[in-house]
Amino acid sequence: MSGVIVTNPPRAAAEDVEALAAFGVATVSEAMGRTGLLGTGLRPIQQGVRVAGTAVTVLSWPGDNLMIHAAVEQCGEGDILVVTTTSPSTDGMFGELFATALQQRGVKGLVIDAGIRDTRELREMDFPAWSRAVSAQGTVKATGGSVNVPVVIGGQVIRPGDVILADDDGVVVVPRERARETAERSGAREAKEAGSRAAFLDGELGLDRYGLRDTLERLGVEYKTYEEYAGEGS
Amino acid sequence: MSGVIVTNPPRAAAEDVEALAAFGVATVSEAMGRTGLLGTGLRPIQQGVRVAGTAVTVLSWPGDNLMIHAAVEQCGEGDILVVTTTSPSTDGMFGELFATALQQRGVKGLVIDAGIRDTRELREMDFPAWSRAVSAQGTVKATGGSVNVPVVIGGQVIRPGDVILADDDGVVVVPRERARETAERSGAREAKEAGSRAAFLDGELGLDRYGLRDTLERLGVEYKTYEEYAGEGS
Amino acid sequence: MSGVIVTNPPRAAAEDVEALAAFGVATVSEAMGRTGLLGTGLRPIQQGVRVAGTAVTVLSWPGDNLMIHAAVEQCGEGDILVVTTTSPSTDGMFGELFATALQQRGVKGLVIDAGIRDTRELREMDFPAWSRAVSAQGTVKATGGSVNVPVVIGGQVIRPGDVILADDDGVVVVPRERARETAERSGAREAKEAGSRAAFLDGELGLDRYGLRDTLERLGVEYKTYEEYAGEGS
Amino acid sequence: MSGVIVTNPPRAAAEDVEALAAFGVATVSEAMGRTGLLGTGLRPIQQGVRVAGTAVTVLSWPGDNLMIHAAVEQCGEGDILVVTTTSPSTDGMFGELFATALQQRGVKGLVIDAGIRDTRELREMDFPAWSRAVSAQGTVKATGGSVNVPVVIGGQVIRPGDVILADDDGVVVVPRERARETAERSGAREAKEAGSRAAFLDGELGLDRYGLRDTLERLGVEYKTYEEYAGEGS
Amino acid sequence: MSGVIVTNPPRAAAEDVEALAAFGVATVSEAMGRTGLLGTGLRPIQQGVRVAGTAVTVLSWPGDNLMIHAAVEQCGEGDILVVTTTSPSTDGMFGELFATALQQRGVKGLVIDAGIRDTRELREMDFPAWSRAVSAQGTVKATGGSVNVPVVIGGQVIRPGDVILADDDGVVVVPRERARETAERSGAREAKEAGSRAAFLDGELGLDRYGLRDTLERLGVEYKTYEEYAGEGS
Amino acid sequence: MSGVIVTNPPRAAAEDVEALAAFGVATVSEAMGRTGLLGTGLRPIQQGVRVAGTAVTVLSWPGDNLMIHAAVEQCGEGDILVVTTTSPSTDGMFGELFATALQQRGVKGLVIDAGIRDTRELREMDFPAWSRAVSAQGTVKATGGSVNVPVVIGGQVIRPGDVILADDDGVVVVPRERARETAERSGAREAKEAGSRAAFLDGELGLDRYGLRDTLERLGVEYKTYEEYAGEGS
Repeated sequence: MSGVIVTNPPRAAAEDVEALAAFGVATVSEAMGRTGLLGTGLRPIQQGVRVAGTAVTVLSWPGDNLMIHAAVEQCGEGDILVVTTTSPSTDGMFGELFATALQQRGVKGLVIDAGIRDTRELREMDFPAWSRAVSAQGTVKATGGSVNVPVVIGGQVIRPGDVILADDDGVVVVPRERARETAERSGAREAKEAGSRAAFLDGELGLDRYGLRDTLERLGVEYKTYEEYAGEGS
Repeated sequence: MSGVIVTNPPRAAAEDVEALAAFGVATVSEAMGRTGLLGTGLRPIQQGVRVAGTAVTVLSWPGDNLMIHAAVEQCGEGDILVVTTTSPSTDGMFGELFATALQQRGVKGLVIDAGIRDTRELREMDFPAWSRAVSAQGTVKATGGSVNVPVVIGGQVIRPGDVILADDDGVVVVPRERARETAERSGAREAKEAGSRAAFLDGELGLDRYGLRDTLERLGVEYKTYEEYAGEGS
Repeated sequence: MSGVIVTNPPRAAAEDVEALAAFGVATVSEAMGRTGLLGTGLRPIQQGVRVAGTAVTVLSWPGDNLMIHAAVEQCGEGDILVVTTTSPSTDGMFGELFATALQQRGVKGLVIDAGIRDTRELREMDFPAWSRAVSAQGTVKATGGSVNVPVVIGGQVIRPGDVILADDDGVVVVPRERARETAERSGAREAKEAGSRAAFLDGELGLDRYGLRDTLERLGVEYKTYEEYAGEGS
Repeated sequence: MSGVIVTNPPRAAAEDVEALAAFGVATVSEAMGRTGLLGTGLRPIQQGVRVAGTAVTVLSWPGDNLMIHAAVEQCGEGDILVVTTTSPSTDGMFGELFATALQQRGVKGLVIDAGIRDTRELREMDFPAWSRAVSAQGTVKATGGSVNVPVVIGGQVIRPGDVILADDDGVVVVPRERARETAERSGAREAKEAGSRAAFLDGELGLDRYGLRDTLERLGVEYKTYEEYAGEGS
Repeated sequence: MSGVIVTNPPRAAAEDVEALAAFGVATVSEAMGRTGLLGTGLRPIQQGVRVAGTAVTVLSWPGDNLMIHAAVEQCGEGDILVVTTTSPSTDGMFGELFATALQQRGVKGLVIDAGIRDTRELREMDFPAWSRAVSAQGTVKATGGSVNVPVVIGGQVIRPGDVILADDDGVVVVPRERARETAERSGAREAKEAGSRAAFLDGELGLDRYGLRDTLERLGVEYKTYEEYAGEGS
Repeated sequence: MSGVIVTNPPRAAAEDVEALAAFGVATVSEAMGRTGLLGTGLRPIQQGVRVAGTAVTVLSWPGDNLMIHAAVEQCGEGDILVVTTTSPSTDGMFGELFATALQQRGVKGLVIDAGIRDTRELREMDFPAWSRAVSAQGTVKATGGSVNVPVVIGGQVIRPGDVILADDDGVVVVPRERARETAERSGAREAKEAGSRAAFLDGELGLDRYGLRDTLERLGVEYKTYEEYAGEGS
């Protein structure tokens, strides 16, 4: 497989990335119409960390981390490295040495649809990562691939320069052109949720606040006492 | 799918719930003849927390959290919300706003055979949860379902008012009629285990304490030295 | 199934085990030519712990922990108990009472290709464990099996007395005859990695340090600007 | 685990079973409000066969087929044997000898939430089966269980005497009290589908036949030409 | 979720689709540089059938087939319906009535990243299908989605009008602009394979035909007799 | 990874292979004390075929079929090719061209713990195969591995020259030294089963034939009428 290394992709504006970093993954996904999530298979190796950055993408052959070496050179301040493979693989393609090189260049974290290793060391050096698997299995450097081409993880297309936001709930991608708009919508959503939170703390019900009693009635959902229900036979 | 919301199901007695809360999930399951467990698929989002309460049950359509809104109204002091879907789903049906509303009503935690989100916030607000998946994926409010009907999770039937006990090992359901008896048997079992623990600390072997040498002999299990074993080939 | 309990298998030398304990699982696997790993399915129940010891092996029937009782007697200072089943099982075959008995005998930890329970208690008593699943499901003592015969977990053959090394990245087995050599190679590898780490902190690239630019060229991987790439369509 | 063998459970009426046998699994599930299905994990070992019968239920320990032997005696003309285990297992608990004994007694087939073997022989002797796995792994006869108690497979409670209907699409359970009503509703549904089938063959659209254009409009789904859509940017 | 129905997307030329239909999925994927495959999760419900057509795409909410109704109207001669959901789902969204309507319009088959039902009927009416699961579980028509927007299945982006080719090995997508070129390359590849086939039938080895002996030597793979190998220990 | 190609391993005697070919996989596994099975993950791509032969083993890097080319040269009359990878992989490493070369050399079939492609062609040319996955994904020839070294699949060690037996129920390995003895035991077992089959056709119960009524009583399993059971609550 011959491939290509794209050297200067456009990146989302740093101020938009920063704006998005103020919100959780769930909020940002909701603000994009419940889209953009990379699925439940990518899990953080640490807890309580949120990070946002611009994607540098890598497409590698399974069991081969050659292209991650090529990608390091393309990474800079504020990036997040995003790695996937041409076929499913759990091999530990990434470890502490890569993290050292990336951290030195200002990279903020890693999202990898494959395995990761040296997880304790990564936690100790505060290099956050989200991966499909934890595996000490090493890899070769024998087959080509690509850097900074569009890749697909969990049903989402990620282009270089798109915004990646990750926290304990998972990972979301925001297309670079929609970063500002999405940050604004996220803020609006959060304001609305603050209102709901206050109302719920006062004992208001979502049924009333969101007008759902009508929905239940329209759908034919009935209220019954336990005696009525039990009396029907199950 | 039209459904029903049952408003006043019987609940296990608070004192029996409290009695069960003194034991671990493994002990209580053993005390019920090794039954009642909801399977290995439900994992806690926090560590080191044990909780017991009475079940308020929800049966939802996948990708739809309308019935959780309906269930909040049916929840009160000492309850645990138990949610499942009509088909397998990992969507994040439950998050921090629901937890706020439930905590305000005295609900002790959540067991959900689907996805959950805002996991960091839930940990910070000490609202414990056990779920099938962590997912930021949002849901709609378009299809009916039921509240406080019997539901099945992990091969166990859970009726409203049954006792739910959850800890780091998983989740167990105790039918409300058997709560007292199960608490008593759990206590007896724990006392017996304390004796074994003391004996093991003194160096006694389970082989002797439980009379298992006879079992091994009856089953034809033989002792051999390494030399005997290696000498046989294989 | 009748079986055999082998009473005095050879064990790797304690000094070699100690030497291996200085390295991570990934390093040791690399030092053995990227072999020896027990796969991504075995996960630790604790974080930040590394342990090394000599294997006492158990082959059990699914849902049956009789042979673990037999194995306790065969365990001593510096051992790690290694348990698998004749068919896949997630039952909680091992808990706090077994850990108490083993810790009293100087056993350092557990690796089990099945379920484990009392996980909170195991963490509190500092008895480290790696398992396929967490499950409170109890087991019977009805069917025979073997102790200290070769077993297979995750595609690796583990013989009694082989060295088991486990940390946050997983578990690796080192054949007892290769323990010393592997420790030496691990040391050499770690020294080499220290050099790379220093170089990467100085900004050197893996592409240059490992001579990978030639590899990329040989494989036909091309560098393009974003404009060149975007101009090609797709 | 001690258990119980229930000897004379009520069975659905033979005429109702026969009536249900005229319909597919999907139709019958729809007629019960989209409930009753045993999930996608149970697959047929043959193609193009549909069977209906009354359940004789078995709850076994994993890796143990003792209780299937006990169940054979409880089986008679028109029954379907329904087997599950207390923990997940793929062992081949059932094979050609059991099928021979059951066929001799007039049993119509097998549904097993575990493994099955001798699949070629079962096909050759026209004994239909639905299973979780195909496995030649043999089992022991060492631990007790139950026959003709309610069991749970795929989230459905199956009581002895309930109707089991299985075809290429999977397996559905119909509670014995609801067998007649469900057969009637299935007939009504099939008549309605015949009308739709004729209409679709005439070129009518579901959008029109089911009045879904209004639904799309209410939900805000818009029609756009490709040019309009492409012009908006992605 | 509001969505969009795109009414007149460009389609690959019929002659190019026909040309691609002459090749297997593996050949076409190889001709595209080993890309385009929709993964191992999509399996055919029939055996020995190959089909090619232009994609009409559907993005549905899980458990909801409203948008398939909308898509039928957009389907015509030579199309293949391609359905996915916003979250993973195995529900049986598609059955014999849909197939009747589509077959009437000249549609050649179905690719669905979810469940399918009425599989026996689909085989009997020669409507080929590839699906993630077989499930009789019915769905609602309550939530919006989109038709003829780009969708992602198995890591591949599928745009409306792209060529879908499916056979016993799986499913591949060919971007509409690359259909002709890919057909030509597939032909060249098949010619080359015919040469290899003839050579292999004559007893030539791939090692020689493809010059792989040099590769083995460069990689340091050694030939040893069994005696040499066994004599080394290991 | 450098590797080794072992050129002349010992093979089980042809007459023993032939003797084993008379039995099913389940029978042979039982005759070896319920061992030797390669697990439920390996499935046949055809139905109704049984094959026996001597193993030629291959250990490949994931996504790389170089070593299969090397293995072809080591294969001869009566062999079965057995392939696994150093990490889990579903790539289609093997297809019709390999089968052509192997069939020309008298090889009887393939067992592969990875993916396979050209499945329709393999069925048409009567080359039987058992695989983990079906996938059209092609592979490279870039990384070394080994031929005719011991490999592990599904927890079983397979050495070159061991007997592989495969049918619709799965795959079993018989160590070459135990081939004759296992064939004899398989014959004895089959004779015994013939007796049971005849007895079951006469209506005898396994409970009586195998003396299991005593077992049930010893285990405390009780017989109850439905009325007794239902009267107990639960």
